[in-house]
Amino acid sequence: MAARPTIGSVARAANVSRQTVSNTLNAPERVRPDTLQRVRTAIADLGYQPNVAARQMRTGRSQLLAMRIEPTRDGVNGVVADRFMHALAESAQAAGYRILLCTATDDASEIDQYRDLNATMSLDGVILSTTHDGDPRRAWLRDNDLAYVSFGRPWVSALPDSPAEDAHWVDVDGAAGTRAGTRALAELGHRRIAFLGWPNPSEVGRDRRSGWESAMAQVPDAGDLIGAESVDSIEEARVVADRLLDEHRPTAVVCASDTLAIAAAAEVARRGLRVGSDVSIIGFDDTPAARALGLASVSQPLLEVANRCVDDMLFQLTGRGTEAGGQLLEPELRLRESVAAPASGSAPDPASPALA
Amino acid sequence: MAARPTIGSVARAANVSRQTVSNTLNAPERVRPDTLQRVRTAIADLGYQPNVAARQMRTGRSQLLAMRIEPTRDGVNGVVADRFMHALAESAQAAGYRILLCTATDDASEIDQYRDLNATMSLDGVILSTTHDGDPRRAWLRDNDLAYVSFGRPWVSALPDSPAEDAHWVDVDGAAGTRAGTRALAELGHRRIAFLGWPNPSEVGRDRRSGWESAMAQVPDAGDLIGAESVDSIEEARVVADRLLDEHRPTAVVCASDTLAIAAAAEVARRGLRVGSDVSIIGFDDTPAARALGLASVSQPLLEVANRCVDDMLFQLTGRGTEAGGQLLEPELRLRESVAAPASGSAPDPASPALA
Repeated sequence: MAARPTIGSVARAANVSRQTVSNTLNAPERVRPDTLQRVRTAIADLGYQPNVAARQMRTGRSQLLAMRIEPTRDGVNGVVADRFMHALAESAQAAGYRILLCTATDDASEIDQYRDLNATMSLDGVILSTTHDGDPRRAWLRDNDLAYVSFGRPWVSALPDSPAEDAHWVDVDGAAGTRAGTRALAELGHRRIAFLGWPNPSEVGRDRRSGWESAMAQVPDAGDLIGAESVDSIEEARVVADRLLDEHRPTAVVCASDTLAIAAAAEVARRGLRVGSDVSIIGFDDTPAARALGLASVSQPLLEVANRCVDDMLFQLTGRGTEAGGQLLEPELRLRESVAAPASGSAPDPASPALA
Repeated sequence: MAARPTIGSVARAANVSRQTVSNTLNAPERVRPDTLQRVRTAIADLGYQPNVAARQMRTGRSQLLAMRIEPTRDGVNGVVADRFMHALAESAQAAGYRILLCTATDDASEIDQYRDLNATMSLDGVILSTTHDGDPRRAWLRDNDLAYVSFGRPWVSALPDSPAEDAHWVDVDGAAGTRAGTRALAELGHRRIAFLGWPNPSEVGRDRRSGWESAMAQVPDAGDLIGAESVDSIEEARVVADRLLDEHRPTAVVCASDTLAIAAAAEVARRGLRVGSDVSIIGFDDTPAARALGLASVSQPLLEVANRCVDDMLFQLTGRGTEAGGQLLEPELRLRESVAAPASGSAPDPASPALA
């Protein structure tokens, strides 16, 4: 592989000092016209391109935004983080920034990554996601003067020594999504609307459950709230959904994720019941799997989230752009065949298993 | 935001020249012990971290590998490219490299991105994917002395002026996957095994079809080959699958993608037939949607592909690692409920539609 031309090889070819080459690039007014011409000819002949090193020395800007991605996951809902990353890469590139990926196992190793990347690459900023209470990343980034914006609320608890909540975040109003789904079911005549959520839920999980709860408080004759919890795995969620359907005979199930919704739909079908007219089901995140199965779901506006994150980053780095200001965006309920009016006033009896 | 400490501020704090700071970092044997101590104290006090600019000036290495990602796609099979990217980010990071994302609309704009990134960031190399015949990217990268390796064969046509095929690629033997699927069906007793592929297929699409064809050539009493083609959309593929099932009554369908397989399964179910015992179906790419639906599929060893790409890059950049050498890795057939022995010797009559 031929050596890449450097400022040194240009200097030798033009018979000038490295400083003169640097001045030609950065302060041409300081260079005599005939010398300027000679250096520029050498730059063109050699195909020299001033690299990030020179530019960074000059501007202190790398145009690099770091982002952590999770390890390879095979789950149904992993696609949401990936769709956000695609949107972010496009939006950042349009604004002249690049996304640099890093992987980490937890918050502490993620911070190690940012420290290392900033030391070696002079990061311009960091795009955070998977925010949670007690998150140490924002404080570290503030302490190290790194710009950041998060997809996700800070979820800061009101500790006496917490810094004032910052506004560099964009999030989607998950509660609004489950509330809209629950209301749509109630309007079709459903009353026994269960929620299938996660055990020991994250803030995101609690938020999604709260939307169902608040909508149920408005449903006449709703009776006791029917809830069940499973980890986000189809196999385990089927066991939980089986018990939920047996014990509570809901006519509809609102789920914290499409994974849970797929499990619930599988158990409905296994009883010989119809998803939709016998038991309506709504998932969350509008994944390709949910669409393939005709399951209603709640879609997050990920392109809009990405654009607002980049706008906030631009605001911090250049004064252009728009501060995110801590905004909750509305998700969209996508109704599909899995939602229908209940077949009768009462919940159906489960038939003997017809489909395995 | 406080100014980040620079080599200049360290020099001022230690009352030495910038060159002495640089020597302290890069050639400490040239610095007097007491001066060394003073500069190191200033570096620690200020929290100065030598950045990529200084390191690049020194080594000419950025440790950055560029990778194009496709625009946000909502399809079922888009997850494969994302899973590869996750695996690559992990594997590259473990080897000391970082993945820098870029987006592009076609080969020419992708090359523009690499030109721009190399000019501004001094790329160490590029990870290519979605290779195809007539691909101009490899030649451009060679001409510009950029290291590259591809997930995907070069698919080079034997033009007289083509460069010798290079060996910087890793790929998965798609034909082996569809061949294994077709053979598994034949061993269960299936004879009328159809292929549902893509129209005007890419090299990848032709490769997947060829595995089915070669396996069918070994199936006794297979009769004429039954094939149909659809673009990779569930809605459009359902129309094609409907006609395929009507006209040819296959007992099994091998598909070029999970999207096509999901469409075929939906049409089988719409006829009141059972996926598996009535019509067996095998998809390709082992997506979460296929797993959720219990569809057999062909799984690509993406972690292994990523590791071999990074090994090849290391080989080119450092002499460590292992040259990829143009290897085809074996995919793995994942059998699930959608594959079963045919219900009877003859193809079933479609029942009247029972499920919509």
